[in-house]
Amino acid sequence: MSAATPPAIQDFYPDDAARCYGCGRLNPEGLGLQTRWDGDETLTLFTPQAYHTALPGFVYGGLLASLIDCHATGTAAAASERAAGRDIGAAAAPRFVTAALNVAYLRPTPLGCELEIRGRVTTSSERKTVVAVTLAARGEVTVRGEVVVVRLPAAPAARAD
Amino acid sequence: MSAATPPAIQDFYPDDAARCYGCGRLNPEGLGLQTRWDGDETLTLFTPQAYHTALPGFVYGGLLASLIDCHATGTAAAASERAAGRDIGAAAAPRFVTAALNVAYLRPTPLGCELEIRGRVTTSSERKTVVAVTLAARGEVTVRGEVVVVRLPAAPAARAD
Repeated sequence: MSAATPPAIQDFYPDDAARCYGCGRLNPEGLGLQTRWDGDETLTLFTPQAYHTALPGFVYGGLLASLIDCHATGTAAAASERAAGRDIGAAAAPRFVTAALNVAYLRPTPLGCELEIRGRVTTSSERKTVVAVTLAARGEVTVRGEVVVVRLPAAPAARAD
Repeated sequence: MSAATPPAIQDFYPDDAARCYGCGRLNPEGLGLQTRWDGDETLTLFTPQAYHTALPGFVYGGLLASLIDCHATGTAAAASERAAGRDIGAAAAPRFVTAALNVAYLRPTPLGCELEIRGRVTTSSERKTVVAVTLAARGEVTVRGEVVVVRLPAAPAARAD
């Protein structure tokens, strides 16, 4: 990462909300996903391990679903902050959790390269936020996701006081 | 497991189709899921590790999606064998892969207990099979899934000859 890498939303989750296996900075066994702005989209980069295989040479679908899941919750948090006029890191980040995860596997995703997961909020209300996600390998979109997320009350942050 | 435990479909995938991170018997780093008949339903039992956390005390949604994914492909394989009049283990098992994975998180799934993942084929054709899945913790269904899977050509088995 260069010094110019923008901040990741997961670095600003309250500690109680930062233990997720997919994206918690406080989970040493986890995947450590990090979601940043890239213009008007959010971007998570991840290179699967060789053992994250489905059929030989291709990435396991459950891992791909996991990448889409955490990327969507991170995207909702980042977008919520932007809508409030705040940059990532200006305050503790809100935490969203997943209500529904819909994943379409368009073609096999090759192992052995970095994956680009990109997201955009498509609808947002007090009650729920919908995030559209693409996952690409070597420039080709291999998986699409639509994820419904809901915002957690701020209690965990308050408990950290 | 008692001596009366019925056979798992994953033990009869051809070697080339048995390296899946979720359910491949030849993936030592994987989750090792095993799917068996339990009457007219299929059943996979799995106890998450403590690090498979979402918010503290609850299971990571990406893992739950993974359990549903592999359980559905195993269910489709088991049902295909049963429809052909064969018990699990009477022949090499067919291998199905996921085209679409739809998961509804009804309520948080507690960590610290065994999860019961149950499946049923709801529609089946030459082109695709749809599997309905429930995931329960301590007797309560916490997650529902609907998974569209497609059957792989038998080429990997032929190559193993």
